[in-house]
Amino acid sequence: MRIVLLGGGGHASDVLGALEALNAKSCNGPGIFIEVAGILADDDVAPERFGHRGIRQIGNIDDLRHIDATHYIACVGYPKGRKSVVDRANDHALAPFTVIHPRAWLSSDVVIGAGAVILANACISASVTIGAHACISNGAIVGHDCRIADFVSVMPGACISGNASLGDGCMIGANATVLEGLSVGAWAAVGAGAVVTSHIPENVVAKGMPARHA
Amino acid sequence: MRIVLLGGGGHASDVLGALEALNAKSCNGPGIFIEVAGILADDDVAPERFGHRGIRQIGNIDDLRHIDATHYIACVGYPKGRKSVVDRANDHALAPFTVIHPRAWLSSDVVIGAGAVILANACISASVTIGAHACISNGAIVGHDCRIADFVSVMPGACISGNASLGDGCMIGANATVLEGLSVGAWAAVGAGAVVTSHIPENVVAKGMPARHA
Amino acid sequence: MRIVLLGGGGHASDVLGALEALNAKSCNGPGIFIEVAGILADDDVAPERFGHRGIRQIGNIDDLRHIDATHYIACVGYPKGRKSVVDRANDHALAPFTVIHPRAWLSSDVVIGAGAVILANACISASVTIGAHACISNGAIVGHDCRIADFVSVMPGACISGNASLGDGCMIGANATVLEGLSVGAWAAVGAGAVVTSHIPENVVAKGMPARHA
Repeated sequence: MRIVLLGGGGHASDVLGALEALNAKSCNGPGIFIEVAGILADDDVAPERFGHRGIRQIGNIDDLRHIDATHYIACVGYPKGRKSVVDRANDHALAPFTVIHPRAWLSSDVVIGAGAVILANACISASVTIGAHACISNGAIVGHDCRIADFVSVMPGACISGNASLGDGCMIGANATVLEGLSVGAWAAVGAGAVVTSHIPENVVAKGMPARHA
Repeated sequence: MRIVLLGGGGHASDVLGALEALNAKSCNGPGIFIEVAGILADDDVAPERFGHRGIRQIGNIDDLRHIDATHYIACVGYPKGRKSVVDRANDHALAPFTVIHPRAWLSSDVVIGAGAVILANACISASVTIGAHACISNGAIVGHDCRIADFVSVMPGACISGNASLGDGCMIGANATVLEGLSVGAWAAVGAGAVVTSHIPENVVAKGMPARHA
Repeated sequence: MRIVLLGGGGHASDVLGALEALNAKSCNGPGIFIEVAGILADDDVAPERFGHRGIRQIGNIDDLRHIDATHYIACVGYPKGRKSVVDRANDHALAPFTVIHPRAWLSSDVVIGAGAVILANACISASVTIGAHACISNGAIVGHDCRIADFVSVMPGACISGNASLGDGCMIGANATVLEGLSVGAWAAVGAGAVVTSHIPENVVAKGMPARHA
């Protein structure tokens, strides 16, 4: 398959690392072969940013209509920006590509939405559902029976305890913790290191231990 | 071997995920073969909870005396409940089964008690001792020379620094940290995200950064 | 190669665990062969500390001039002590040995300095540079484009977000978080569980969420 990355920042770097690991993995059978067509981004990407990987910017996101590729990955770290890119990509014929780093661990009954990205050392327990275009970053842990909706970002090292529910496009900061059975509302943001001890409504920013919001 | 799980909640899901990973692992030689006889639980377990894995509830915990199995695993996440189940199991002839997820990493000189459960991405350093029926959960880190007593629960992402000592049945919350050389007393509970900077006595609940108790 | 360890405390235990894992690894091709000549330490090391691994203290650090070995590893957990040992080692002909635990994950474009130690379950993203004799401990996460200088210690479970910069010899405590694009000055210390939300100057101690310093 031939993939185009939408976005040229740090999240694209992380996704490229995962694609290289998928191409290279030597345990669990042969690697798969993923070819990267290039980067589409609205801002100019410095050639040296991805040049050492043999990859370069080949246009802006509206050029998606002209691109010789079968799949895309929305490489934007934050939920709103990622949704915006996906909305534009949906006008075209490419399919979203779902990335699971070979160093992630997922229970066999996890259900993952199209375009989700699961990075290295993430750990996803039994009976979890992960929505479309959600991102579970390096070393993040998702406990049993969690429901992770579309466009969610779980940042590195965050821990979502069992039976929790994360609404569309919410963001859980690095090393933050959500306690068992709680919910975080759509498009809310939980700060780095925060500990969520009660339900968090939609669209708020919650910080601290315990997490408080305005 | 043929194993019965005691408890039908989320911790049973986590343990089943680890058993599947042990059966399936394709690196480091062939997988082992673990057959799960079923779930024993005092409360009714919905058939759909484990049905997709081909596993069902076959009685309550007192039915252990009738069960055709060689080993049991106490699948209760919290220390006191787990000890209570183990006390009942000890009246019968089954042996406790010790679970080490193939994606955990343990130094070669770690000593692990019977019935302990070590989940995915846990990391246990040199010269650590882990007690009977202790649980080291996903992504938790135990530093060199730690002494982890029986029935302890170290929750996901928690970090126990080197030379620390955790007493019987204490619980260390998700993403919490215990600093080097400190002790947490028996049956104490350390809250999620807390940072333990002094010795914690038995039976207290300690929360915050630094962790305070009543 | 034949390696001598400088230091006989807990960090030497962690390094020995990583060397054993390198010798033993059965995926990704055959293991490498690393022979450990012994421990050099200024304090007396109890024989039982490393005896179960077949390793013993063979002198103090000044005996480095007499040792039959090709490489050394500075096994001191804290940055200032590690630099002091490296300064003494540099008077001799041995080369520093760089340790990457086979259970760590590093993007293919990470650049690592001589003598750095990367422990199990560490995760280092794209385009990161790691300085000489830096240590990235168990389960620590370093985000894309970070610049980690010489002698830095990133403790277990700490998360360094993308584009951050850690100055020479700074220490990031267990489960601490540094937010995106921030810098921590040389020889500063960030406490366990702290959340760094603004630049941290050199030589200070910063604690709490958000991290404050005197």
